[in-house]
Amino acid sequence: MLTYVYIIAITAEAMSGALAAGRRNMDMFGVALIAFLTALGGGTVRDVLLGNYPVTWTQYPLYIYLTITAGLATMLMARYMHHLRKVFLLLDAMGLVAFTIIGCNIALQLDYSYTVVVMAGITTGIFGGILRDIMCNRTPQVLSHELYASVSLLVALLYLGMREWGIQHDLNMMISFAIGLSVRMAAIRWHWSLPVFSYKPGRWED
Amino acid sequence: MLTYVYIIAITAEAMSGALAAGRRNMDMFGVALIAFLTALGGGTVRDVLLGNYPVTWTQYPLYIYLTITAGLATMLMARYMHHLRKVFLLLDAMGLVAFTIIGCNIALQLDYSYTVVVMAGITTGIFGGILRDIMCNRTPQVLSHELYASVSLLVALLYLGMREWGIQHDLNMMISFAIGLSVRMAAIRWHWSLPVFSYKPGRWED
Amino acid sequence: MLTYVYIIAITAEAMSGALAAGRRNMDMFGVALIAFLTALGGGTVRDVLLGNYPVTWTQYPLYIYLTITAGLATMLMARYMHHLRKVFLLLDAMGLVAFTIIGCNIALQLDYSYTVVVMAGITTGIFGGILRDIMCNRTPQVLSHELYASVSLLVALLYLGMREWGIQHDLNMMISFAIGLSVRMAAIRWHWSLPVFSYKPGRWED
Repeated sequence: MLTYVYIIAITAEAMSGALAAGRRNMDMFGVALIAFLTALGGGTVRDVLLGNYPVTWTQYPLYIYLTITAGLATMLMARYMHHLRKVFLLLDAMGLVAFTIIGCNIALQLDYSYTVVVMAGITTGIFGGILRDIMCNRTPQVLSHELYASVSLLVALLYLGMREWGIQHDLNMMISFAIGLSVRMAAIRWHWSLPVFSYKPGRWED
Repeated sequence: MLTYVYIIAITAEAMSGALAAGRRNMDMFGVALIAFLTALGGGTVRDVLLGNYPVTWTQYPLYIYLTITAGLATMLMARYMHHLRKVFLLLDAMGLVAFTIIGCNIALQLDYSYTVVVMAGITTGIFGGILRDIMCNRTPQVLSHELYASVSLLVALLYLGMREWGIQHDLNMMISFAIGLSVRMAAIRWHWSLPVFSYKPGRWED
Repeated sequence: MLTYVYIIAITAEAMSGALAAGRRNMDMFGVALIAFLTALGGGTVRDVLLGNYPVTWTQYPLYIYLTITAGLATMLMARYMHHLRKVFLLLDAMGLVAFTIIGCNIALQLDYSYTVVVMAGITTGIFGGILRDIMCNRTPQVLSHELYASVSLLVALLYLGMREWGIQHDLNMMISFAIGLSVRMAAIRWHWSLPVFSYKPGRWED
């Protein structure tokens, strides 16, 4: 099941990357590259940090073609995109949660400590979006909007907690997935967000 | 031959990095760092992605000194730079093509699939310029100008295609290099470019 | 001793990251992430470049919690921060110098050449700040202010030089540390800086 969710998720992430590239008037190549980076960048950063070689996407060319195709298709569909807003936000939330669980699983397999497992989950969940925003020269949105990165943290903690309590693996994944998805959708619906830190530097610092 | 072209190429890339740093009023250290990153950053990203350790430049201190020296020399020569515009664009194009072929070769040696080989070639070709632009806080130019990244893709495909057809290795490199360089120079001359994706978000997305 | 200085240093770096995140109105999660990246990002980049796996912080969960806590605490203390300006600059300078020496030591242990050792030291010293500024969408400040990155270079050269002359290891570290710290504080006090390269492109380049 996670594989199907994963495929839906990287498609949704690739489309969000393509839209961001479109706002910067990039050419087709730029659109394809940002789509790829948004969809598979989080997993890439995780693999490099954990020393998990070969990097996952190098072994699955199909995922590369899927994300590039989704990015290019977005160029054609962009004008109808706003009709799909709610679908899109749902797919993106599915991606966030699925990526997080996958990231945790990979770090668990490599015998990292729980702290690192949580960070691997979050990295997989949010770094695609961060790379997208860095490439498009804007401040990463995942760090200042409705609960987003925090949902990733919640899912990782939940997943590890239930694992410790001995809950069966598939059931654990389904519960973590359902709760994570619900919290994210609720956060969008009712604008839940974390406290924001607004700091205006004095003259001593620029 | 590829070694000579490579040396010319990293020098040209280092100079382009130094000019970008100068536009941001960086100090000598910043100029040297951006020069180094622009020239050797693409290969570094490739090595890290492929797990090709030790990273290439760590074994060739001479290349490090060359790029830093080229960067610092650019500070002195900047005012005469516009006279050299055409030479500069030619050297940069040689770099793009040479980097791509080198990147493909390294991924081939590591037995990656052809899809990954193409991506390694492109990464080597364009990521130096992308890192330069990220460090200088601007949207990567290689993704929105005349055919640039696409030339890297073309060269990689051509090189692998001729390899499959059994064309002798040195001949293959020369043909790929010549065609890539010609296409890039023609793209500059006649402003060839890919379709651009301009997306203006509605109010539902910021 | 270096361990204590290191702990003080990552705390100071985490706080500087949190302040930068606050200027971008990030939420608590963003503040924690930028704090972590600023404090431990330089060492992470070094480990990935040198192939020094597992990445250091994955083996020391305590450092992860320390940097995140320091970042979040900064949210509460921000309004009193300007009273601490001089302390803060001192701690940051200690971090720069300590990180540099630690980075050199790790590259030495891995038998890299002296050129790479120096670059590992500088990377550890300055890349946390560079990642912070990239994440906050501004041009890296360490490359354009009073002597900062250059202090890192000086410390690395000094440390290796004294090592070659056979000076005892602990003494070497103390002397390098003291001189590096003094030069950095003097640079702040008397506004020492490197020549700046200001390049205004002609019309031929955008």
